[in-house]
Amino acid sequence: VELLTYSIENRGNLPVYMYIYECIRRDILSGKIQPGERLPSKRPLAAHLGVAIITIENAYAQLITEGYVQSREKRGYFVSEDMKDIVVLPDRRSQEAGNALTSGGKEQNTAGDFSSGIKDQFENPINAATSIFADFSASSIKSDSFPFDSWAKLMRRSMLDHEVSFLEAPSGQGVQVLREAISDYLYKSKGMNVDAQRIIVGPGTEYLHHILIQLLGRNCFVAVEDPGYNKVGRIYETNGVRVLHIPVDEKGMIIDRLKDSNVKMVHTSPSHHFPTGSVMPADRRNRLLTWALSQDAYIIEDDYDSEFRFEGRPIATLYSMDGSHVIYMNTFTRTLAPSIRIAYMVLPEVLHRKYLDKLYFYSGTVSGFEQYTLASFIGEGYYERHIRRMRNRYKKCRSKMLEALRESGALKVISLNEDKAGLQLSFRVRDEYVKNAMNLDAKMLTLGVKIVAVKSYCYNAVRDYDNSYLLYYSDIDKMDMIKAFSMLKSALEN
Amino acid sequence: VELLTYSIENRGNLPVYMYIYECIRRDILSGKIQPGERLPSKRPLAAHLGVAIITIENAYAQLITEGYVQSREKRGYFVSEDMKDIVVLPDRRSQEAGNALTSGGKEQNTAGDFSSGIKDQFENPINAATSIFADFSASSIKSDSFPFDSWAKLMRRSMLDHEVSFLEAPSGQGVQVLREAISDYLYKSKGMNVDAQRIIVGPGTEYLHHILIQLLGRNCFVAVEDPGYNKVGRIYETNGVRVLHIPVDEKGMIIDRLKDSNVKMVHTSPSHHFPTGSVMPADRRNRLLTWALSQDAYIIEDDYDSEFRFEGRPIATLYSMDGSHVIYMNTFTRTLAPSIRIAYMVLPEVLHRKYLDKLYFYSGTVSGFEQYTLASFIGEGYYERHIRRMRNRYKKCRSKMLEALRESGALKVISLNEDKAGLQLSFRVRDEYVKNAMNLDAKMLTLGVKIVAVKSYCYNAVRDYDNSYLLYYSDIDKMDMIKAFSMLKSALEN
Repeated sequence: VELLTYSIENRGNLPVYMYIYECIRRDILSGKIQPGERLPSKRPLAAHLGVAIITIENAYAQLITEGYVQSREKRGYFVSEDMKDIVVLPDRRSQEAGNALTSGGKEQNTAGDFSSGIKDQFENPINAATSIFADFSASSIKSDSFPFDSWAKLMRRSMLDHEVSFLEAPSGQGVQVLREAISDYLYKSKGMNVDAQRIIVGPGTEYLHHILIQLLGRNCFVAVEDPGYNKVGRIYETNGVRVLHIPVDEKGMIIDRLKDSNVKMVHTSPSHHFPTGSVMPADRRNRLLTWALSQDAYIIEDDYDSEFRFEGRPIATLYSMDGSHVIYMNTFTRTLAPSIRIAYMVLPEVLHRKYLDKLYFYSGTVSGFEQYTLASFIGEGYYERHIRRMRNRYKKCRSKMLEALRESGALKVISLNEDKAGLQLSFRVRDEYVKNAMNLDAKMLTLGVKIVAVKSYCYNAVRDYDNSYLLYYSDIDKMDMIKAFSMLKSALEN
Repeated sequence: VELLTYSIENRGNLPVYMYIYECIRRDILSGKIQPGERLPSKRPLAAHLGVAIITIENAYAQLITEGYVQSREKRGYFVSEDMKDIVVLPDRRSQEAGNALTSGGKEQNTAGDFSSGIKDQFENPINAATSIFADFSASSIKSDSFPFDSWAKLMRRSMLDHEVSFLEAPSGQGVQVLREAISDYLYKSKGMNVDAQRIIVGPGTEYLHHILIQLLGRNCFVAVEDPGYNKVGRIYETNGVRVLHIPVDEKGMIIDRLKDSNVKMVHTSPSHHFPTGSVMPADRRNRLLTWALSQDAYIIEDDYDSEFRFEGRPIATLYSMDGSHVIYMNTFTRTLAPSIRIAYMVLPEVLHRKYLDKLYFYSGTVSGFEQYTLASFIGEGYYERHIRRMRNRYKKCRSKMLEALRESGALKVISLNEDKAGLQLSFRVRDEYVKNAMNLDAKMLTLGVKIVAVKSYCYNAVRDYDNSYLLYYSDIDKMDMIKAFSMLKSALEN
């Protein structure tokens, strides 16, 4: 293998490892480095580029997470063979890579969320008389998490500053200063170049789906992931749009299953699939984009917990690979407080023109007070700090849970998916113990422990997920955790 | 005529005049007093009941406003002949009258609104280079109207009081305390008996219409008033529901036009039609309700500016005549500030059950912070005081405008509809001057005066409204008003 040469001094504001990651990624996408080709070893490359070995390690780690590169034990790093299937889209690609390289996406510690459980609470109607001492069915990390004081202070100031604006209805798309703050934030935290004019603010992602239905009409299918975030399919069905439930394998949605149907929208969370936690690798992303381009269909990239990755930088978005067919969607409800109903999406240009043409008459749906407050909250750095705090907190809960799992001996009977993002771990009952795993969630509930079956997020019964469960991070006492996991172990050993 | 006997001591908390009004209304509806029958004269009735003459006058005035009674000059007061067509629905009626009589609806001065113009701003895309010195196209009464201090104080307190609740997503229907505050308010201010469980809170009436569409499906027509609030029809059309535009005469929607069609919902503002300002009289209300019952259709009673009646008490709602087929809808956006996006509707029982069954999965759409704040704002009397202040303010602007109209001599060329509610007056060019009235709004615009053509709210060109215009109350200088109205006069005299 040839040593790669990149001019570190051209990195702009990017951290060195991210610059190297972006350069290699660009070379892979452009075909300059071929599928199957071996990448230089870390040490010589570090010496060649004049950087620390850890820098190269970080860059490679990100490439591996995103599926561009595979590590083969004792043999080194190779460009993923899957990249062979990628149809390179030279214009968008190089443009995008260029953007990423000049966008100066300083690494921000952007993670935090404490309500993922809520998303699916309605899926879990179990009510037991037993007193629950260990609830892993929804994130229970709640106290002192929202910065009420700062929020109230900013709210008050916004009221005084914007007194006159408050007496006007906020525009249907959301107030300009908030859309600009979101655009800045996306640029700084994820290197995304987003035109504030194309952002639509709404009181939750559910409302944004309603907008999309009005833009795209009902004479088509929308595809959702199975298993996945069931509520999305339900919203479309309730609104008269037919829904296709596409099975998910370890790389995400199986693209072939989209063929031969009039699918005009696909809902997916490529950065962190719910509930399996998988990251959609580069080849699958490319196949999905290629499909969307060929069908002139849209991908809704639901980046619902992207702020909440414990290691590495945030996964590059689908949107930044192709903004013409990707609708980027995210929410503040998860990162701030469930009571704050503010979400947003970025519309591709064609859809945005349609929006202006067809839906111009709608009034704003989010209180002007809160829009201005949130704009200041983001613009003055409160948001980043809040997310950093939340992420650390979750990280600690996660470590505590991992320790409790180890110390309880439960790992003998279950195998963990050590997901490094999001708000929950998933586990699978080991094959030898499957015989005792029937209705494990119900069994545990009678013992005072709540866990969630992945099966409950499946639309079609998929046997693959029969023995998989979720454990939401929780700040219950470690001794209670150990007790709960010991009970889990006993239940499976019988 | 026989003197009517009612036991004033049974009035509960009702003011005496309202009690008498309710008793007579009940007797008319039950057929005890027949259509065409003469009511006792004021003086003897007052003596008979032991109340002041003014009390009887007030009671009769309200009966006249609502169309139950007609006053014939020098002959006295007669039950409206139109009441002949009324199909009496004895159960609901007596129940409702009973409720009203025991509900203790103390008279509240409930009026105020300052954004009616916004509702239709998008209808009025005229942009002239001329500098506008008199804008009657939207209400411009804006400054020092919103009680920022009280709001901020309550918001802060709510945050501390409800810290934990804020970390839960508000329910799809809205938080309980707000729904209870709304229910109390409707009871106190309008004598409505509303179960808080059947209230749905949303970020604007537009969203509430989306909910209704999801409940009733698309396989039907919705009927809207023509002229009327055009946005409603647009919302339904955009969502794939066919819209029937029903012409309006001086009593409101022409019910016969609803026949022979699959109409499942009718949108109307019986207390104050937009933009004509008419109040739907009792006989028309009854015909509308009878139609709805016979078709099992729903009436959306949009009470958009009911808080804003300058004389008499608020008009009795359709909802309180029959809650089984009326969806009562109202918004706080108009009475508080356009930036606050909180509206609500009361669903009839059958629809509410459908809602729980079908739409249970939706999250709340209004910030919990604002819901709790508004609940305190209403519950602690701030809302009433605010409305009273706003109403007085509008009343003053209205008087100023009426004076300016008189002093300018404009009444020679136009005739006013002296609407005693809402945010605007309407006028009609007198027949002798119609020849000069072509494009009057455009003509006035070139002179620096903005007025709104009623025609712009018509769906089908209706010649009846060709020469009608709206003047929104405005707090511009009286001299400017006189100047503007003098110009109007000259333009029409040519």
